[in-house]
Amino acid sequence: MNVAIVGATGYGGLQLVSLLKNNKNFNITFLGGEKSSGSKWNDLFPFLNLEKNLIVEKISPSTISEKSEVVMLSLPSGIASTITPELLNRGLKVIDLSADYRYKSLDLWKEIYFHESSIYKRKDYDLCAEAIYGIPEIFYKEISNARLVSCPGCYPTSSLIPLIPFLAQGIIESEGIIIDSKSGTSGGGRNPKQNLLLSESSEGVSAYGLINHRHTSEIEQILSSLSGSDIQLTFTPHLVPIVRGMFTTIYGRLRDPGLTSDDCKILLENYYRNYSNIKVLPVGKYPSTKWVRNTNNIFISINVDARSGRIIFLSVIDNLLKGQAGQAIQNLNLMSGLPMNKGLDLISLYP
Amino acid sequence: MNVAIVGATGYGGLQLVSLLKNNKNFNITFLGGEKSSGSKWNDLFPFLNLEKNLIVEKISPSTISEKSEVVMLSLPSGIASTITPELLNRGLKVIDLSADYRYKSLDLWKEIYFHESSIYKRKDYDLCAEAIYGIPEIFYKEISNARLVSCPGCYPTSSLIPLIPFLAQGIIESEGIIIDSKSGTSGGGRNPKQNLLLSESSEGVSAYGLINHRHTSEIEQILSSLSGSDIQLTFTPHLVPIVRGMFTTIYGRLRDPGLTSDDCKILLENYYRNYSNIKVLPVGKYPSTKWVRNTNNIFISINVDARSGRIIFLSVIDNLLKGQAGQAIQNLNLMSGLPMNKGLDLISLYP
Amino acid sequence: MNVAIVGATGYGGLQLVSLLKNNKNFNITFLGGEKSSGSKWNDLFPFLNLEKNLIVEKISPSTISEKSEVVMLSLPSGIASTITPELLNRGLKVIDLSADYRYKSLDLWKEIYFHESSIYKRKDYDLCAEAIYGIPEIFYKEISNARLVSCPGCYPTSSLIPLIPFLAQGIIESEGIIIDSKSGTSGGGRNPKQNLLLSESSEGVSAYGLINHRHTSEIEQILSSLSGSDIQLTFTPHLVPIVRGMFTTIYGRLRDPGLTSDDCKILLENYYRNYSNIKVLPVGKYPSTKWVRNTNNIFISINVDARSGRIIFLSVIDNLLKGQAGQAIQNLNLMSGLPMNKGLDLISLYP
Amino acid sequence: MNVAIVGATGYGGLQLVSLLKNNKNFNITFLGGEKSSGSKWNDLFPFLNLEKNLIVEKISPSTISEKSEVVMLSLPSGIASTITPELLNRGLKVIDLSADYRYKSLDLWKEIYFHESSIYKRKDYDLCAEAIYGIPEIFYKEISNARLVSCPGCYPTSSLIPLIPFLAQGIIESEGIIIDSKSGTSGGGRNPKQNLLLSESSEGVSAYGLINHRHTSEIEQILSSLSGSDIQLTFTPHLVPIVRGMFTTIYGRLRDPGLTSDDCKILLENYYRNYSNIKVLPVGKYPSTKWVRNTNNIFISINVDARSGRIIFLSVIDNLLKGQAGQAIQNLNLMSGLPMNKGLDLISLYP
Repeated sequence: MNVAIVGATGYGGLQLVSLLKNNKNFNITFLGGEKSSGSKWNDLFPFLNLEKNLIVEKISPSTISEKSEVVMLSLPSGIASTITPELLNRGLKVIDLSADYRYKSLDLWKEIYFHESSIYKRKDYDLCAEAIYGIPEIFYKEISNARLVSCPGCYPTSSLIPLIPFLAQGIIESEGIIIDSKSGTSGGGRNPKQNLLLSESSEGVSAYGLINHRHTSEIEQILSSLSGSDIQLTFTPHLVPIVRGMFTTIYGRLRDPGLTSDDCKILLENYYRNYSNIKVLPVGKYPSTKWVRNTNNIFISINVDARSGRIIFLSVIDNLLKGQAGQAIQNLNLMSGLPMNKGLDLISLYP
Repeated sequence: MNVAIVGATGYGGLQLVSLLKNNKNFNITFLGGEKSSGSKWNDLFPFLNLEKNLIVEKISPSTISEKSEVVMLSLPSGIASTITPELLNRGLKVIDLSADYRYKSLDLWKEIYFHESSIYKRKDYDLCAEAIYGIPEIFYKEISNARLVSCPGCYPTSSLIPLIPFLAQGIIESEGIIIDSKSGTSGGGRNPKQNLLLSESSEGVSAYGLINHRHTSEIEQILSSLSGSDIQLTFTPHLVPIVRGMFTTIYGRLRDPGLTSDDCKILLENYYRNYSNIKVLPVGKYPSTKWVRNTNNIFISINVDARSGRIIFLSVIDNLLKGQAGQAIQNLNLMSGLPMNKGLDLISLYP
Repeated sequence: MNVAIVGATGYGGLQLVSLLKNNKNFNITFLGGEKSSGSKWNDLFPFLNLEKNLIVEKISPSTISEKSEVVMLSLPSGIASTITPELLNRGLKVIDLSADYRYKSLDLWKEIYFHESSIYKRKDYDLCAEAIYGIPEIFYKEISNARLVSCPGCYPTSSLIPLIPFLAQGIIESEGIIIDSKSGTSGGGRNPKQNLLLSESSEGVSAYGLINHRHTSEIEQILSSLSGSDIQLTFTPHLVPIVRGMFTTIYGRLRDPGLTSDDCKILLENYYRNYSNIKVLPVGKYPSTKWVRNTNNIFISINVDARSGRIIFLSVIDNLLKGQAGQAIQNLNLMSGLPMNKGLDLISLYP
Repeated sequence: MNVAIVGATGYGGLQLVSLLKNNKNFNITFLGGEKSSGSKWNDLFPFLNLEKNLIVEKISPSTISEKSEVVMLSLPSGIASTITPELLNRGLKVIDLSADYRYKSLDLWKEIYFHESSIYKRKDYDLCAEAIYGIPEIFYKEISNARLVSCPGCYPTSSLIPLIPFLAQGIIESEGIIIDSKSGTSGGGRNPKQNLLLSESSEGVSAYGLINHRHTSEIEQILSSLSGSDIQLTFTPHLVPIVRGMFTTIYGRLRDPGLTSDDCKILLENYYRNYSNIKVLPVGKYPSTKWVRNTNNIFISINVDARSGRIIFLSVIDNLLKGQAGQAIQNLNLMSGLPMNKGLDLISLYP
């Protein structure tokens, strides 16, 4: 299967290249980028050599469709929507890593991505409705048959995987959920920004996007749909001085205060028993983001406070893998008829 | 005033020395430490030279009382209680940075500090009842007249200062408060521990002490006492790879859902209007731990989510200053009849 | 004395503000910056509040001269030369932190700063000849009488202070000196650059500007002038993932192989015996950049390898203080008739 | 082939487990450790799960020899020598990652490892003479036939690979070589030490072991042997706040000052043309330690300063891979009749 990677020189794109470069099921046949178009890949990234030294090309749907059968788009918000319709028309499958197709309703997207919607005059209501939200462990059937998959954001991934089993089965209350998440700087991308300089972000912890962060609505949409009730939650993203990694602490309330940590742990294990990359920890054992670095795993710890009937989930992912490119490859596998974790048997880089 | 610093070679002790070395109101006359006793201070710490090159001495109440009028104890849990009674008897004032006198009830201490209580057979019920909890902006009168002040932990400091005005005045609900706190590694001390190695903690975020962390009860005791109701809350400490700094995110619910962020901000400003080191940010502006590094300040941001009636506090402190030694010096000032922030006009180290 | 700081929002400028804000000998009366002109300082930097909340202004010699008697220029290469002549004509004293007046010969500057010389058509040969190179411990007399002082780069400062006594006195050979220096990222400035992102520079050590780095010629000019022989040396700068700090390792050869480490240490101590901020370590004790963070000190360690007759110097400075703004304040003091270290009694931030 | 890993819970051991756990040519059949003996591996390291959940065992040559054909020793200095003779006698092949067999002369070892030699009364002169120094790209023939291979230290590896071609062929002078090397903290091991705490080593650069570091003699021994002349050089190790990575800057002098950077680059490329993990960069391109993280590669840059006839080498390795466990696996491959880089096709973790 010939694969195009568009936005190849950003962190998402670089991770996609890393994952596919030695993967025998896929060939990288197109590397798209604006600023570095015309350069040889191996000159740009001597530490990430491709056997076939491709030249980075400008983004053109016709060139992409000549060379590839599936295309992975790792682009800033709004841009994917300008080429996805044509790529699909030309018969390609599309895996989009941006937010452009994460909402079933284009109108909601326009509301949330207000600024982008003023630049990109979108009318692809049908594609928003058609696109499958790419959490492979939840939506594997739909993904397998999809021609357009929209990969979740890293914050939603780390939040949804622990919460879905409990909300879908009505075990925790739908009201009052709090998500306090801590992300590394690579989530902010490779384009230089002052607040992401080592001089600025090292020795600093900060919060941003309180109350109205875009991912709040993304998480709410999926949880509402799967639980059948209108979920409104509080989500607070924080920036911590690590490169890769996301630690998410989730607070909820049990409907049945008699449930123990062990009960909840077993429930979660059973829900994901077929997915070896979702790892539920023994009660009392807490994960570190370092455990998942360079892997597509998510570790989850569950803790019930009997005193207050509150349940606390801890989850860790590598934001560039399970939070981005690794999950995209899971989707690529499913769309290609392969087992979802094929080529993703990665080993944690420790220490 | 002659001051003894006991436990001078730990991070709390080193910070006390830094704060007092050029302070004209106090003389350091005794430096106590076990492992490095007999060494000259300036040989141990050439970058923190004292004009009078003291020798680090073994901890002895009689020696301390010969040389000093006030003693600051920066020792592991339990040890302060073995010398505090004698130090007080000898007429010294004692400022304890450990947890030994943070509970009004010694029995509660024995329950929470179970392990230490099996080593140190304490009977000083009266001193526990007498000791003043050292948040100077709240308890300045009591501290001014005290002979024994027990300094709060860093987590409680960063949590209590934002919460007290709102709970004392009944503005937020007493139930369901969640404190999600992120601490730098210096809070774990200077004694080598594997999990605090740079190789282990760099590029890692983790949580520890869920549900039952010792500081939960410390925070609850003060909030219950000041609000007049029995406060039970959820507190989750996290370790982040910074040296100094504590970022605390607090989630509560407003009793009156009509209050805005600005209302709450003004309320907080008024409450602390006399304390220049408590800085309330404009609504929509969020702090970083980097802003308070090397200072005794706390920055607080308040955000109300009108949709859910929830209030979110963000607070940042330097855990070794406002969270430990800086606050201790505020108490020292008050106990010496000086303005509490004397000698603490420190400038943020940025970047 | 009224002081203007031009380029106030860069790291050099911020450090100047930090050093002057509580300094009773100087008033900050003008803060210049292009991008943030029109903003109130305290809104931009709430963690570095000025009592008098100045507005950042566009850079104008006439405005500066109305408000100030001395001006500190912390600007990118070339720009200082466009306003310095007028500022001097208007009777101000100028302390320039850029490279514009570091060479006695403007022609050499044009050769080394080739790119800048094509933008800024300089003719101020006389000012290049007049400007005093601002190492206050070496050129205090000239600085005291100067109206234009050019502050050295951080690499030259950390290299010259150890080397000058040995080359000026002919103790080490003038040929074959190697300077291997390691700098933190704040030396690269506050403008966002991709290679200085935390995601890129964390967990990375790299070298840059080999053989032809601009500071090579700056170091050589001063050493040649002071030693009376034509010094050519090898200088290799490295980037390490710390914010502040510069570690410089210098390799030379003794002319007299009989000299010991102790001999050389005593020689250095004597040379700088009047300068308390130059600290020579006991033989066998090595410094860390962390020792000088937040101070204007330089620590130097000297080691002689009897086997090879080679001498190794280790020096550490805070690149934003002794390497930049701290040294500039030393010059400001001298030019104002004050002791050079007035207001610079800073305490190391440790840990 | 059944492999025992002794010292499995240190950083070297953990890296060996990571490299072998999915390697089809080898089975891990024994995991040795003192402190954690009796624990299940997967409980200790849930992020590094072994399919067969082995129990960590005490170190016993008889148990090892029952279960394994080859043993990899990753132990503190001196200990390997207490079990290696028996392991060899029982017919096992031994790959030692410590310094115990790095010197042909046991007497030299006793001199350099003075402290250890007072604890471990060694008499295995013959084994010291027999052991092969394990740089596989240089000594592949001897390693292929060896029963005892002694893996080089990380500093020697990063220094010798660039230097050997030039000294063996007499291209650079044998006198006056300077090696200035910068290492991450994982080189200091997983046992807690104060100076390796994040609180201590973060934001710090320091040097240690000047002039007499043990690796000086190790490098000199190999270079002297391969060049046929008595090499004495200067080696200065530095500690930088990264976990993995070693950056080595080497300064030498060309015998023929007419050689250019390109000449030297081509020479080096030719010398190692069969070794894909030794990567010589185009002239003017400089490596970062980040490029080799999680790989067994070494990148080398060569720069000639025509002015001074000096040559500067820059090399980067991952100290736990090419500097330790990765190189050990290369030796294991050769001793097992496999291509040396089998199973080592690792992808750089970037960013």
